[in-house]
Amino acid sequence: MIAKTPSPPYYAVIFSNIRTEIEEGYAQTADHMVELAEKMPGYLGHESVRDGLGITISYWKDLESIKFWKQQQEHLEAQKNGRKMWYKAYKTRICLVERDYGFEL
Amino acid sequence: MIAKTPSPPYYAVIFSNIRTEIEEGYAQTADHMVELAEKMPGYLGHESVRDGLGITISYWKDLESIKFWKQQQEHLEAQKNGRKMWYKAYKTRICLVERDYGFEL
Repeated sequence: MIAKTPSPPYYAVIFSNIRTEIEEGYAQTADHMVELAEKMPGYLGHESVRDGLGITISYWKDLESIKFWKQQQEHLEAQKNGRKMWYKAYKTRICLVERDYGFEL
Repeated sequence: MIAKTPSPPYYAVIFSNIRTEIEEGYAQTADHMVELAEKMPGYLGHESVRDGLGITISYWKDLESIKFWKQQQEHLEAQKNGRKMWYKAYKTRICLVERDYGFEL
């Protein structure tokens, strides 16, 4: 689903990633991280797709919300396991959404 | 592939979309748009994934490059056909990438 975000400005965290073959704990952790993120202050929505390359974008009210989420205890643990087991490579981009527009049939 | 972008600041255009069932001309146009974009001034790379939801992110040097690409003649035609045939819904977000960091095995 396309995230229903408010009018800009707001922030986007683009997480582009390539997985290893290790499945252990991955799906449960990914689901749990979504549950946790949704409860964080400043969370505005997310979009996630994988097809070889994975792209997950989470949307946030401001930089402070992103920083707070990055330091959440279980999220820190997940990030550590991500580097240790689940990802071959990733890139995280912190972005200020300046403008948006859309279309719906 | 994860796009190899230069150090921030630069721009990202996040195009989140849901397709109709109409295939006519879609794949050819999508491929051609990538070819064209790669030749545009200020183009820095792109990432594209679909699995129900489609996310295509293109990276650009500045807002001027994005504006120039948006107004490219064949791209204008593709945008029109997108609304007419290929997309049920889309959202485009123009973002200033302020910071990025990554990891590679």
